Amino acid sequence: MAHTIADLAARLGLEHAGDGTLVIARAAEPAHAGPDALAMAMSPKYAEGLAKGHARAAMLWPGADWQALGLAAALFAPRPRWAMAGVCEALDPGYDFGTGIHPSAHIDPSAEIGTGARIGPFAVIGARARIGPNARIAPHVSVGEDAVIGADAILHAGARIGARCVIGERYIGQPNSVVGGCGFSFVTPEGSGAEDVRATLSGERQVRAQKWHRIQSLGAVRIGDDVELGANSSIDRGTIRDTVIGSGTKIDSVCQIGHNVQMGEDCMMCGMAGVAGSARIGDRVLLAGKVAVNDNIFVGDDVIVGGASRVYTNVPAGRTILGDPATKLETQLEIRRVLRRLPRLAAQVARLQEAVFPGKGSG
Amino acid sequence: MAHTIADLAARLGLEHAGDGTLVIARAAEPAHAGPDALAMAMSPKYAEGLAKGHARAAMLWPGADWQALGLAAALFAPRPRWAMAGVCEALDPGYDFGTGIHPSAHIDPSAEIGTGARIGPFAVIGARARIGPNARIAPHVSVGEDAVIGADAILHAGARIGARCVIGERYIGQPNSVVGGCGFSFVTPEGSGAEDVRATLSGERQVRAQKWHRIQSLGAVRIGDDVELGANSSIDRGTIRDTVIGSGTKIDSVCQIGHNVQMGEDCMMCGMAGVAGSARIGDRVLLAGKVAVNDNIFVGDDVIVGGASRVYTNVPAGRTILGDPATKLETQLEIRRVLRRLPRLAAQVARLQEAVFPGKGSG
Amino acid sequence: MAHTIADLAARLGLEHAGDGTLVIARAAEPAHAGPDALAMAMSPKYAEGLAKGHARAAMLWPGADWQALGLAAALFAPRPRWAMAGVCEALDPGYDFGTGIHPSAHIDPSAEIGTGARIGPFAVIGARARIGPNARIAPHVSVGEDAVIGADAILHAGARIGARCVIGERYIGQPNSVVGGCGFSFVTPEGSGAEDVRATLSGERQVRAQKWHRIQSLGAVRIGDDVELGANSSIDRGTIRDTVIGSGTKIDSVCQIGHNVQMGEDCMMCGMAGVAGSARIGDRVLLAGKVAVNDNIFVGDDVIVGGASRVYTNVPAGRTILGDPATKLETQLEIRRVLRRLPRLAAQVARLQEAVFPGKGSG
Repeated sequence: MAHTIADLAARLGLEHAGDGTLVIARAAEPAHAGPDALAMAMSPKYAEGLAKGHARAAMLWPGADWQALGLAAALFAPRPRWAMAGVCEALDPGYDFGTGIHPSAHIDPSAEIGTGARIGPFAVIGARARIGPNARIAPHVSVGEDAVIGADAILHAGARIGARCVIGERYIGQPNSVVGGCGFSFVTPEGSGAEDVRATLSGERQVRAQKWHRIQSLGAVRIGDDVELGANSSIDRGTIRDTVIGSGTKIDSVCQIGHNVQMGEDCMMCGMAGVAGSARIGDRVLLAGKVAVNDNIFVGDDVIVGGASRVYTNVPAGRTILGDPATKLETQLEIRRVLRRLPRLAAQVARLQEAVFPGKGSG
Repeated sequence: MAHTIADLAARLGLEHAGDGTLVIARAAEPAHAGPDALAMAMSPKYAEGLAKGHARAAMLWPGADWQALGLAAALFAPRPRWAMAGVCEALDPGYDFGTGIHPSAHIDPSAEIGTGARIGPFAVIGARARIGPNARIAPHVSVGEDAVIGADAILHAGARIGARCVIGERYIGQPNSVVGGCGFSFVTPEGSGAEDVRATLSGERQVRAQKWHRIQSLGAVRIGDDVELGANSSIDRGTIRDTVIGSGTKIDSVCQIGHNVQMGEDCMMCGMAGVAGSARIGDRVLLAGKVAVNDNIFVGDDVIVGGASRVYTNVPAGRTILGDPATKLETQLEIRRVLRRLPRLAAQVARLQEAVFPGKGSG
Repeated sequence: MAHTIADLAARLGLEHAGDGTLVIARAAEPAHAGPDALAMAMSPKYAEGLAKGHARAAMLWPGADWQALGLAAALFAPRPRWAMAGVCEALDPGYDFGTGIHPSAHIDPSAEIGTGARIGPFAVIGARARIGPNARIAPHVSVGEDAVIGADAILHAGARIGARCVIGERYIGQPNSVVGGCGFSFVTPEGSGAEDVRATLSGERQVRAQKWHRIQSLGAVRIGDDVELGANSSIDRGTIRDTVIGSGTKIDSVCQIGHNVQMGEDCMMCGMAGVAGSARIGDRVLLAGKVAVNDNIFVGDDVIVGGASRVYTNVPAGRTILGDPATKLETQLEIRRVLRRLPRLAAQVARLQEAVFPGKGSG
């Protein structure tokens, strides 16, 4: 994984200066970088760190005086985060998926395994499942009957792909992620309290016995190309149709996606976010950490939902929203400004009340 | 899994019309239904979809003119969601749990396996565990020592049942669900900052060193009949007594139930909801998605808690609550109405202030 | 696991009275205690329960009249929760991790297994991994290549330790917990809508196509001694540096910790709490259930964050905070008091408006 500075510059399309033959074997924060590391110092605030560390080469901000910083070589990053991606890709040690198919794996004779696929100890591949070429499958993974896994997919330890689910190319399933749990869909013979509340938006309702009867999930989960699902995250199957995740969508750890959800392409869903059953999410939607999206609603293309927001109603395309309940970002920032001084506002109203309606109390 | 329309009608107790001998092999949304599918079109809004698809048979709303819709046969559903449950059950392909006990499963010689139970590759059954008749156990499931699994239970891939836990009949554990993690219970020798805050409801406290000492969980988890636990959800064991989940209760994916919780019968707990340690939940309680219930509180029978609410205090039986902190539904809807126009309210108060106390600023 | 009362008193450093030779085999709640159980009745409110049960011995509050309560022996607990910890430790039946290394476990020949370590069926230990002495590893656990597990660590069923992660002594990984999923770190070549919103704090932005490019995680996860990670919880690896969890920190079930997080020592993180990427958390910080901590912020030593709070900005050491957005505890309690009567406040303002600016409407 070692690279010369000149190689890295060419690979990343960046300018470099100094000794292009210098070899770096790792990346490091400036203060902790040894002489074999590329110090990641993409803004002037890292200059002090560089002085503390022992880097001979660094990724710097454009125009940085690399010689004054005591370096033997430098790369220059006009877009630091993009350069970071390039460096991490170049230096990634990757994971050990073994070679070929481990003899302890249990593969149904009717399954088809693509050329170059690697399958680890104790993995289980069900009947008629199809594993794409060069897929890498870690120990303790299970792939259900009739499931399809695309080429170059990675399933980390304990990842689950349920029966009949179809997964695109280059999918990454983090450890213990689950695709294809049953939908959470139940019904009572005569109607439930929850249905009454939804119909009337009122808490006044008749209490009655209710036994939940399961609605089996006939659908599966269908996932496009280049999708990632985080550790301990879960996507449920659909009832009649499939739950669908569009190509390019990235889902973080400990997230949940309910049955029938239709999520578009190139979305990003951050840690602990959840999308309830039958919600439809457009393309390029960003759900920040801990966001909740209500069931059966629609979130348009390019919507950005700020951290920990709760989305109860449809959101038009392109909007940026925040809060519980979520409102337009600007509205929410105003609401929060007033909220912080709400006790003062209440005291002010009490004084006005006393001045305008003396002796009438807080009315 | 194919059925004639007449068979389905009899099985579901529904009226039908047209060619009762027509065979359907699947269910589909109206617009995507082929000639072998039953189109699910239980309200007039689906008429357009029916025209786009190629269904010859449909599940329709009562009184629908099936012939005008171009169908050869129809079923009529007075309660659409209930009919949906019946159709999905009739057409459910189920899951492949193999036949009998897979030779690679590791079953302790002292375990008892009920007749008809099926156990998949690499499953582990601990010492003295008892598996009920016809239970279906998927690959990579573990059942701890002295645990009991009821008849007809289903444990999907990677589901965990800890030592000494007792699980009722027809339990469904979704992939990677966990029953019987240790309770999260710690103590410091001399009292902790959190205890001080709880006692005084004040942030003024002495900061001190604190080392957490573990309180071992002597209890297990006891689960009634007909309970379901979602993918990546977790129920912790109790400290002295068992954590208890009543019969008929359904728990969605990515949920958490803390140690000592006593949850009643026929409850429903939606995705990403959590109940903290030692809370008691009545019967038929509904916790919507992302709800949080505080530790050590009591939520009465038939309570409905709306989406993403935070319940910090006891809730009397029959109440419908919403919000953070949760209040009665009607109160919360009023609060939210005012919240949305809070900046306007503040501006109004500022103008009143200026009119009543001129030149005094915002008080 | 049976103990005499005198033994327990010596072991726990507590005073006792009555028949010190009485043997107890278990602990129980007072009302459900049989004659072989120690009834846990550490406050006078349990006296009634004692009368209902059949305990001959109890853990009582200091000064309790054990003879009047009909007991043959008693222990006295000045700090009940601490005494509880001692009793549970004394009576803990523990878990069956088998003896030695199960023949079905797959251990890479280059791995080092410490003396006394126990490894269960179907566990997988990767290349060059080092397992500490007396570690206990349950079925279906995976430990990646080059990972290090400290002495006396416990990995419950399905727990994952990723490649190159380093785990301290006495670590407890609950079932299906994950250490070392990849960081959730992506970048677009030209900047994304989310970056625009963060830079301007405004929802006004240009919508554009964006494809997410993965930033590989070069870092791992480094965990100190005496750390616990709950069932279905996840800690992601770092990008350049490691994600770090300090010694003595306890993390509950269904929690998430993002990439690069630096968490201090002796923290407590309760169920469903989440800490987003690159946040720094001090020592002895308590995050209550469902708390969210924003990415890239700093939470000082000894901070206590109340239940379900959302922390968006830096928090100075020693502070107690609550709410969404989190404020000082006292401020939030005041805000909530006003919030509950917000509709009344709005009506009051409307009346003032009508009195001061008659006929002008609500302004």
